[in-house]
Amino acid sequence: MSGKLIVKKFGGSSVANVERLRRVALRIVETAKGGNHVVVVVSAMGDTTDELIELSKKITKNPPEREMDMLMSTGEQISSSLLSMTINEMGTRAISFTGSQVGIMTDGFHTRAKVLKIETKRIKKEIAGGKIVIIAGFQGMNKAREITTLGRGGSDLSAVALAVALGADVCEIYTDVEGIYTADPRVVNNAKKLKYITFDEMLELAARGAQVMQTRAVEVAKKFNLPLHVRSSFSKKEGTIIMKKTPYIEEPVVRGVTLTESEAKVTIGSVPDKPGIAAKIFTELAKKNINVDMIVQNVSHKKTTDISFTTLKSTLPKAIKTAKEIAKKIKAGIISFDNDIAKVSVVGVGMKSHSGVAAKCFSILAKGKINIDMISTSEISISCTVKKEAGKKALKILHKELKLNKVKS
Amino acid sequence: MSGKLIVKKFGGSSVANVERLRRVALRIVETAKGGNHVVVVVSAMGDTTDELIELSKKITKNPPEREMDMLMSTGEQISSSLLSMTINEMGTRAISFTGSQVGIMTDGFHTRAKVLKIETKRIKKEIAGGKIVIIAGFQGMNKAREITTLGRGGSDLSAVALAVALGADVCEIYTDVEGIYTADPRVVNNAKKLKYITFDEMLELAARGAQVMQTRAVEVAKKFNLPLHVRSSFSKKEGTIIMKKTPYIEEPVVRGVTLTESEAKVTIGSVPDKPGIAAKIFTELAKKNINVDMIVQNVSHKKTTDISFTTLKSTLPKAIKTAKEIAKKIKAGIISFDNDIAKVSVVGVGMKSHSGVAAKCFSILAKGKINIDMISTSEISISCTVKKEAGKKALKILHKELKLNKVKS
Repeated sequence: MSGKLIVKKFGGSSVANVERLRRVALRIVETAKGGNHVVVVVSAMGDTTDELIELSKKITKNPPEREMDMLMSTGEQISSSLLSMTINEMGTRAISFTGSQVGIMTDGFHTRAKVLKIETKRIKKEIAGGKIVIIAGFQGMNKAREITTLGRGGSDLSAVALAVALGADVCEIYTDVEGIYTADPRVVNNAKKLKYITFDEMLELAARGAQVMQTRAVEVAKKFNLPLHVRSSFSKKEGTIIMKKTPYIEEPVVRGVTLTESEAKVTIGSVPDKPGIAAKIFTELAKKNINVDMIVQNVSHKKTTDISFTTLKSTLPKAIKTAKEIAKKIKAGIISFDNDIAKVSVVGVGMKSHSGVAAKCFSILAKGKINIDMISTSEISISCTVKKEAGKKALKILHKELKLNKVKS
Repeated sequence: MSGKLIVKKFGGSSVANVERLRRVALRIVETAKGGNHVVVVVSAMGDTTDELIELSKKITKNPPEREMDMLMSTGEQISSSLLSMTINEMGTRAISFTGSQVGIMTDGFHTRAKVLKIETKRIKKEIAGGKIVIIAGFQGMNKAREITTLGRGGSDLSAVALAVALGADVCEIYTDVEGIYTADPRVVNNAKKLKYITFDEMLELAARGAQVMQTRAVEVAKKFNLPLHVRSSFSKKEGTIIMKKTPYIEEPVVRGVTLTESEAKVTIGSVPDKPGIAAKIFTELAKKNINVDMIVQNVSHKKTTDISFTTLKSTLPKAIKTAKEIAKKIKAGIISFDNDIAKVSVVGVGMKSHSGVAAKCFSILAKGKINIDMISTSEISISCTVKKEAGKKALKILHKELKLNKVKS
């Protein structure tokens, strides 16, 4: 008996049908038979959540968010009860719970609630009674006993929060890929799976387009220093451990490159170069719920400057409209935009103490005859926008020249 | 402002798709705009419950009943949240609740729980706040906060129990037929819709094969003397009022005839004619969960007698097996069975004080050259089994000769 407490989270594709539920159940039972206590968090089966959202769209463009939560939370209730049945059918005792039943307490912001606290009493009682506990992911309840949901990818957060609250020894995130790669393997065919990655790198990769884990879940894991094991539900291979510090003596410089084509660029020309102007612009955009990613301001010439920012393509029309209103108010020049861009990013904690990475990246792109449009850097990342048609080439050449297929995994 | 509190229950076919949800929503809004408070109970959309059961059957033949309740209760949660969205989209405020949220407290018998009590605080608060309250039917929770369901047709029971707990002025059961008929209109084309019917008649009709309302719901309505209005969700016509006493000076003699082909007959031959033998037989059958409907024992001859009973065709194999075991124990003779029977019943409260109805029915059947196999009577009903192929003819001729197409409706 190793007697560990293990939290396992299975995504929608891992439980998409009865056959896959069986495979997942077998895996859970195996861990339990190894003498461990197991708490499982499940997402809704396959595309259930999207289907429920589609159904609501047939009724209204603006459903009350409280009612959306009532609707969407059923997806995980279905998958968790079916998974519990599957495990029971195998002769191992299991019990399923909704987020409300198990006391996942959240604030009152429907469709994007924050977890405040988890009552662990009932879970601990069932574990002590020898049962595998299955919990519907993505959901909780506020203090008025209303059902809330945690936003897209919220089951990751359910798993991490439960692992923290229960003091779990291991938190495994099962998904349809084998771990975190140096680049998206669908684009870069010799991308390498990483054995370890830091929380900060994972957050940066997620922010720059990698879609393996929900960002908020990684933030909570970082806050409580809970290592996460991201792995495939379709194979037994070890995946990637996300942790505070990797076991390497020195952190590798670059851990991954990402590409996103989902952003567009907006430029406000001839902005008066006065203190407080940038604040004014981005406060106004935030008020309209327009998420801004990169912000670039060139050095000013003749008392005016150009300010560019990128935003999701889906919010571009709103962003242009808002930018025009702002330009009028602050007496700036014309608004231009570019829908036809891609963003490549290079991420690695080691960049903090390693100068010259930016220069190297720019040289690589130049060598590939790829023109850089905007540049933005953080302590552990460098992002460049390029013409959209050059995006994949940029990703591949950076991955190759930075020798990521040969990094310490 | 009439200011009435009206409970409306809509069955699965009434909310089967977005179009029907809109029609139902319009109707609810109309009632609310008439100055009434409205509490709505909904079933799952169309065949949702059956689909969920099918899904569970792919996993196991014997799912834990607690998990079945977790699974099945999602159907009504989906329909109630979508109905709430539909009403809100029309500009009228509505809020949906699960059975658990609204405090429908039940005992712990999963998949067939009994309602113990309903906390009405939250519902009353929302009504006072001017909202239409939509409640997921068919479900509640036990004192351990486990989700329970109330058995097939349980939404009827939810509606009746809520109407009683809230002291509603009216309880309307919307369904896909226009009310209670003197016979199944699909078989007897001049069957007449009844304006009034007593609780006892409705219970007897339901027990004899009429499938309009759940029997338990009618029993609760009878207990608390709550009149029910069964009507169509597809028309504005008045339906049938189920009540304690109809407004007629004398109760009409016969109110309806029913036909069921879902039963089979088992006969235990040469049963020793001793006290306690019948008790032994039917206690044993009850232990095995075999529901018995008609029981007939012929007068004994030579110290033995034959005992016949009818049971649902689906439980016939189990009934035969059990009967054989019993026969061995009590030293009875051979077991025979007949799958090929139909049962016709004549129901009416007026039969209590009207002799000769049985004789009349037997004459009618004789005139139609229909041979009667078993006969069983209660205070307000007469049932006969006949050969299956004669069932429909028997129903039609009884309806015609008892002049039910001309009864006071």
